[in-house]
Amino acid sequence: MLPKKDILLLKHLLVHKKNEEIKTILAKLHPADIAEMLGEIKNVNKKIFLRLLDTEKAAEVLEELEPSERLTLIEDMTEAEIVKILENMSVDEIIDLFQEMPNRQVEKLLSRLPGSYYDELKTLLKMAEDTAGGLMTTDFVYLFSDITVSDAIDVVRQFGQDAETIYYLYVVDEAKHLMGVLSLRELISAPRHKKICDIMHKKVVSVDVGLDQEEVAKTISKYSLLAVPVVDKQNRLLGIVTVDDALDVMEAEDTEDIHKMAGISPEEDVVLTSSIWGASKKRIFWLVVCLLGDLLSGMVIDVYSGILQSVVAVAFFIPVLMATGGNVGTQSLALAVRGIATGELNTKNLTAFIKEETLAGLNVGIICGLVLAVVAFIWQKNIHLSMSVGISMGIALMFSAFIGILIPMLFNFLKIDPAVASGPFITTVVDVCTLVIYFTFSMAFLSRFSGKLGPGFGPGI
Amino acid sequence: MLPKKDILLLKHLLVHKKNEEIKTILAKLHPADIAEMLGEIKNVNKKIFLRLLDTEKAAEVLEELEPSERLTLIEDMTEAEIVKILENMSVDEIIDLFQEMPNRQVEKLLSRLPGSYYDELKTLLKMAEDTAGGLMTTDFVYLFSDITVSDAIDVVRQFGQDAETIYYLYVVDEAKHLMGVLSLRELISAPRHKKICDIMHKKVVSVDVGLDQEEVAKTISKYSLLAVPVVDKQNRLLGIVTVDDALDVMEAEDTEDIHKMAGISPEEDVVLTSSIWGASKKRIFWLVVCLLGDLLSGMVIDVYSGILQSVVAVAFFIPVLMATGGNVGTQSLALAVRGIATGELNTKNLTAFIKEETLAGLNVGIICGLVLAVVAFIWQKNIHLSMSVGISMGIALMFSAFIGILIPMLFNFLKIDPAVASGPFITTVVDVCTLVIYFTFSMAFLSRFSGKLGPGFGPGI
Repeated sequence: MLPKKDILLLKHLLVHKKNEEIKTILAKLHPADIAEMLGEIKNVNKKIFLRLLDTEKAAEVLEELEPSERLTLIEDMTEAEIVKILENMSVDEIIDLFQEMPNRQVEKLLSRLPGSYYDELKTLLKMAEDTAGGLMTTDFVYLFSDITVSDAIDVVRQFGQDAETIYYLYVVDEAKHLMGVLSLRELISAPRHKKICDIMHKKVVSVDVGLDQEEVAKTISKYSLLAVPVVDKQNRLLGIVTVDDALDVMEAEDTEDIHKMAGISPEEDVVLTSSIWGASKKRIFWLVVCLLGDLLSGMVIDVYSGILQSVVAVAFFIPVLMATGGNVGTQSLALAVRGIATGELNTKNLTAFIKEETLAGLNVGIICGLVLAVVAFIWQKNIHLSMSVGISMGIALMFSAFIGILIPMLFNFLKIDPAVASGPFITTVVDVCTLVIYFTFSMAFLSRFSGKLGPGFGPGI
Repeated sequence: MLPKKDILLLKHLLVHKKNEEIKTILAKLHPADIAEMLGEIKNVNKKIFLRLLDTEKAAEVLEELEPSERLTLIEDMTEAEIVKILENMSVDEIIDLFQEMPNRQVEKLLSRLPGSYYDELKTLLKMAEDTAGGLMTTDFVYLFSDITVSDAIDVVRQFGQDAETIYYLYVVDEAKHLMGVLSLRELISAPRHKKICDIMHKKVVSVDVGLDQEEVAKTISKYSLLAVPVVDKQNRLLGIVTVDDALDVMEAEDTEDIHKMAGISPEEDVVLTSSIWGASKKRIFWLVVCLLGDLLSGMVIDVYSGILQSVVAVAFFIPVLMATGGNVGTQSLALAVRGIATGELNTKNLTAFIKEETLAGLNVGIICGLVLAVVAFIWQKNIHLSMSVGISMGIALMFSAFIGILIPMLFNFLKIDPAVASGPFITTVVDVCTLVIYFTFSMAFLSRFSGKLGPGFGPGI
């Protein structure tokens, strides 16, 4: 939330090459604010600003940026300069950066980093990006269970400087098995002579190194933690994931959910990709699937084309019925997908939810059906047509609400991500059903009650 | 993540009224796990379980539940019992609970709570629920700037017990103006004789008491904070919002975003409402708006009905063109809305984004157009029809991508929440445009190249 005038001032100083003044201003700014400002200016200027920061601050600013943006900023730097910045970055952020780099460059940089880093980074690089292992940092404080509180405080003083958090202290045995946890709050208020094993919590919420990052964030949120320990199958402590990473994951997953709902395949960098084909690729799959599906709707019209030729006004209501059906289906889908994601929908209230939303579909169907029937009558002055349109709307909407819930539920039951049942997919299914309902009722009403129909009337098959 | 067998065991013990055994098991469980379990069982049993917990644990469990659920659980309790539980809850959670209760009950409970609570709770109750003020807690530790580190450590020991967090210590003057902040980490590693004002950070990230809760969560996330101080216009410290509340807000806003995108109005309790009308109300607004909009599509067909009567096959492709156009529009909308929300889209890359996505629309338009033209030719054996269908698809999709971005951008520019431009709304606009494009091309191709058209051909106006 850097004021616009500060950005203008910095730009002004940059034009006049007043580097010393820029340095003074940047030194006072929060890294997150500098990162935000870098997002608003040209790439060339970004690099100049970065060079005016001291190494520690430059590292902090890089940590605030998206991994893909970081690469552009450091591409002109020498290896020595990059290594200096890396030494000031936390381990999990270095890994994020390495994952964007070509392997050759990573190997070169690794060989120039202090020896202690090498094995640690190598191991972390092997973890899948979107799991607890890919998210965790190894900069945490651990204590052995048999030391005293007073010794533990010394450990925190000594090793706490570089740790991501010192507010949770993890207790381990010699083989690094996770034994317990203690908050700094508890440690400092405990009698100095007590043993750690006597005051620690033995029940620790931990996550497996392979757990999906969304589940890690949910665990942190559920237990209101500041960090969660990451362990392997033998319960050995490998690292920790902190709450700020959980917040970032939540934001990213939020974006992914909304994109999936709209039938966009998840991609790394969504807003601006390098090629036009990149921007199209993530859209095309569901589009073509649904295109083929929607041809079924065309075939339904083909089957009933006789009625269209007799009463062409039947065609005028195809768009409104299809669109409203699709809208109701998408609404139900959104409710179901979010209900499943947040856990608000569970086995206990499932039936109640399906019943409620289907009835809500009938309810909105009755309202929309009445509105449509009245408008149709005013427009076309044909009572049979307006009745068939209104009744079709009512039934189609109830049906759409039901389908919009049932399909994601079914996917969830079959252990398929319910968000895969995207809006476009639901709409396609709903369209076909709506048209079948509409033409069935049009046939019934217009053939029974109307004398206007010619000989071409009836299904064309 | 309580295992299923534990829940079954508890249910079994409940049936056999083994209350002592239940007590022992519950005492060992994490409040968040108990809260999760309560979500899976009947209301009557929930109340029994709650009574088997000691007051402190019961308070913690209640804090984990949704505010609306809490009411059901405590409705049979006496006022004395409720007051006991309230005394063990944190201030921000008490406020959440009070906001669900009838005013009369709140007044009664307030009068029975210890005097110190009264004014504080009264003030908090006046704040809007979805602002920093509604979210904050007043249980925080503050220090005066002129005391020494050693005195400060005593303050933390003495007042830290009930505080929501002791990891950030806020420094104030006599009138409670926010002067600085200090982390516990910095405090314990500072020389004991130093003055607080000499070691505190004078630049503090704070939020205004009236700031929207989503912005509060974003601030916490941006600066990777564990808590953010809430101040009034005079920079007086009123409370703090902690990171665990930010996580909850993010989850709730995520749900709201997805619902808005699907054209569902935001409501308090979304999954199960008390009445069917409640479930319908949140859906009906956009449905009726779009219903009326989609009648425009019908009018477009009416205008061009001459061509339908001559070549009925033109109608077969109305669904696929409308649906694919709507899908592309919704995809663009999702990209734009999320881009705006996360700040990835800004004034700098706006034009590049619009250009990229419109070109992506043309790109998918060409692919979908080719697929459709081929299928149309195989199906109808009419080269002119298949050409008009294919070309319409290409142009309509480019246009849909453009509209899907432009409208939310425009809304954002006009300071209207871009998520209000919901999927249904975009689809309606896109439908009308698509049909106009389709019929224009059908007319051009089929009248110029086809001899099959009868005298009724041409726009019906």
